[in-house]
Amino acid sequence: MTLQTLQRSVEDGVLTVTLSRPDQLNAFTVTMADELERTFREVNGDDSVRAVIVTGAGRAFCAGMDLSSEGNVFGLDEAARPTLADMADLSNPEIARVRDTGGRVTLAIHDCRKPVIAAINGPAVGIGATMTLAMDARLVSTAARFGLVFGRLGIVPEAASTWFLPRVVGMPRALDLALSADILDANATVENGLATAAYEPAQLLPAARALADRWTKGRSPVAVALTRQMLRRNAAFDHPADAHRVDSLGMFWSSVGDGKEGVAAFLEKRTPDFTGQASAMPDFYTEWIDETP
Amino acid sequence: MTLQTLQRSVEDGVLTVTLSRPDQLNAFTVTMADELERTFREVNGDDSVRAVIVTGAGRAFCAGMDLSSEGNVFGLDEAARPTLADMADLSNPEIARVRDTGGRVTLAIHDCRKPVIAAINGPAVGIGATMTLAMDARLVSTAARFGLVFGRLGIVPEAASTWFLPRVVGMPRALDLALSADILDANATVENGLATAAYEPAQLLPAARALADRWTKGRSPVAVALTRQMLRRNAAFDHPADAHRVDSLGMFWSSVGDGKEGVAAFLEKRTPDFTGQASAMPDFYTEWIDETP
Amino acid sequence: MTLQTLQRSVEDGVLTVTLSRPDQLNAFTVTMADELERTFREVNGDDSVRAVIVTGAGRAFCAGMDLSSEGNVFGLDEAARPTLADMADLSNPEIARVRDTGGRVTLAIHDCRKPVIAAINGPAVGIGATMTLAMDARLVSTAARFGLVFGRLGIVPEAASTWFLPRVVGMPRALDLALSADILDANATVENGLATAAYEPAQLLPAARALADRWTKGRSPVAVALTRQMLRRNAAFDHPADAHRVDSLGMFWSSVGDGKEGVAAFLEKRTPDFTGQASAMPDFYTEWIDETP
Repeated sequence: MTLQTLQRSVEDGVLTVTLSRPDQLNAFTVTMADELERTFREVNGDDSVRAVIVTGAGRAFCAGMDLSSEGNVFGLDEAARPTLADMADLSNPEIARVRDTGGRVTLAIHDCRKPVIAAINGPAVGIGATMTLAMDARLVSTAARFGLVFGRLGIVPEAASTWFLPRVVGMPRALDLALSADILDANATVENGLATAAYEPAQLLPAARALADRWTKGRSPVAVALTRQMLRRNAAFDHPADAHRVDSLGMFWSSVGDGKEGVAAFLEKRTPDFTGQASAMPDFYTEWIDETP
Repeated sequence: MTLQTLQRSVEDGVLTVTLSRPDQLNAFTVTMADELERTFREVNGDDSVRAVIVTGAGRAFCAGMDLSSEGNVFGLDEAARPTLADMADLSNPEIARVRDTGGRVTLAIHDCRKPVIAAINGPAVGIGATMTLAMDARLVSTAARFGLVFGRLGIVPEAASTWFLPRVVGMPRALDLALSADILDANATVENGLATAAYEPAQLLPAARALADRWTKGRSPVAVALTRQMLRRNAAFDHPADAHRVDSLGMFWSSVGDGKEGVAAFLEKRTPDFTGQASAMPDFYTEWIDETP
Repeated sequence: MTLQTLQRSVEDGVLTVTLSRPDQLNAFTVTMADELERTFREVNGDDSVRAVIVTGAGRAFCAGMDLSSEGNVFGLDEAARPTLADMADLSNPEIARVRDTGGRVTLAIHDCRKPVIAAINGPAVGIGATMTLAMDARLVSTAARFGLVFGRLGIVPEAASTWFLPRVVGMPRALDLALSADILDANATVENGLATAAYEPAQLLPAARALADRWTKGRSPVAVALTRQMLRRNAAFDHPADAHRVDSLGMFWSSVGDGKEGVAAFLEKRTPDFTGQASAMPDFYTEWIDETP
């Protein structure tokens, strides 16, 4: 696919996605949403990629929704008056224009079979901030800024961030960050638990790559994908018995897949040679993932 | 309404509710529950109020249930033997006496369209402690005490605190606080994540007012109410797609409401002049809020 | 029952369960799973026990699944290909071999009417680590190690740990611990929020006993059991109104049970003499606990 708003490159199994509208501080557009959503959906079938890093071109990470661009929700017909019942079926084309563009991206990140790491190199504001909350870790450079500024514009946090944010920082801090709508510097971003650590700008991408390696190098891509989804899905169940159902199946399918090699290698004190691929998940995966939306 | 147990005053858009039975250390009664519940329900329709602060008259915040008063659950007929099925419809008058009085208050706080801040000026024990867990922030004076003392009385935490407490301090600490039933001093209350900071007594209400201003002054009351509810409701959904449904609608309705002015003011580099009112929430609000209980 | 893998002793109302296959570093077997599950189910009916401590014999806590033993999932018929639908009824004997053995244990711990404290005296790896996540507190000795090592073997976290772990350490840390599959030393275990404190080896069991006393001594066993379950079950509901239903009933049944004595003793400034027993829970308990599986 030809990309207008992103640069993508794969090196040593890590896909780096660079938000790339540097003259607009990588402001988010509907095209960028489309390209990010497709990227995170397509990477599930690309076994050459074991992890994804997202960063920004130039001095910003993403300055938020490009308010000068067309096609966002602010162009909608006021008479439409959509209801919650209208939104039941997200695949209904009738509601396509009502669906928050940021949410399309974060749901694709949530569904991703590869760990996704935000390398926040500069200001991350609005959707630039909320898109990272769906990722598996956030690393910031000392030049980063992080702002859930929606409240200053008379609008609300989006991109399913009200689901993700309390899981990242806890509810009291989530309420304070969203209601205050402050823009935090890099240190405050770390102190508030929004990012794991702040790095000198030149060290940001190497640190993100080291984390991607730590999580995925020499690992079973199937086990990585299952583990990531089990934490995201199972923890949201009402009862641990539902997690038990899923991880019993995860163990069964591991036992007939990469787990067999993993255990053999462990017993033989050698490096395992995993052959499973995330493009071909165990039989129960689709049933499990599909039944939760 | 004539109030027997509370003082209420509005200054600069902030309603201060003072628990006011100082000779009984503001001990909680059924009348206080009724007056608090009505206060938090009625404030939703009062556009002169943008935030609520709750504090106590005299040296206590609230010393817990007034065990000398009538009408609490301890006066119930033992033969009633209510079941969980009986509780399905909370509006059923048959179960009115079984319903925990503290829970009526905290559910009204949870449903509130305005941020609610606890300014804990002295001992907060039992329902005096649990009622604050449903609020959006807890500030303590150095004279505060905080105690989930239920276990010492052979009873259980109430006021839906087993739902709110783990969201405030995490599950391991919630288990320890509830099982130990200890009374914490101000510093321990902050160290345990139950409050954001401890203030000299004279600084407590000014700090609470500053926080109320920080969260609401110059903001769209509709966006404030939506943001507060989105964090409280959406985070409890099983899947972020459900949050996405809600915030798509939050964005749509913002786009035909205060968001239009907010974005225009931002682009014109001026202060926005929001006209939305929390007494008139967007069409989807009732459908959304009603379908979660 | 004759025990092959555990030692059990009761002293001053505290049951200490010692994983006892010291020559195998207390590696976990199907027999150990059976014995632990039965222990945590049976203790619900044993009113001589008010709390449970789990520790390991010799230098390890539990070195994980005994990969040399038979009967674990790795012996399953590959042709079975179980689905999530197959797992709907966990009591179905057809799926008994698919069910994760660790999950049988952690679900029994979750359901337990007594607080359960892990006293981690040495390496806790794999199921040795995840079984403790379902307990109410984890104390470590300086000799402890803690490792969610599944990813190194091409398998996935089990024992419903993807449900419990984010509740213990929050989601960002849960993702990092599970994906990195690192083995932490005692200090790192505490720093990551997995344990409350590290003790000199000789101080570990005394500290665990002191915590058991702090949570249960002189308390109503019924109120302790209700409080523990209310935090575990109610917090997972979608809405606090569901917690309100449960704690209204918890208060009603306390009011006709130990709460009557507890309040009387409080008013009379004397030590309460509770007579309730966890073997005989209030009428609503079974309805409540059964309807959440």
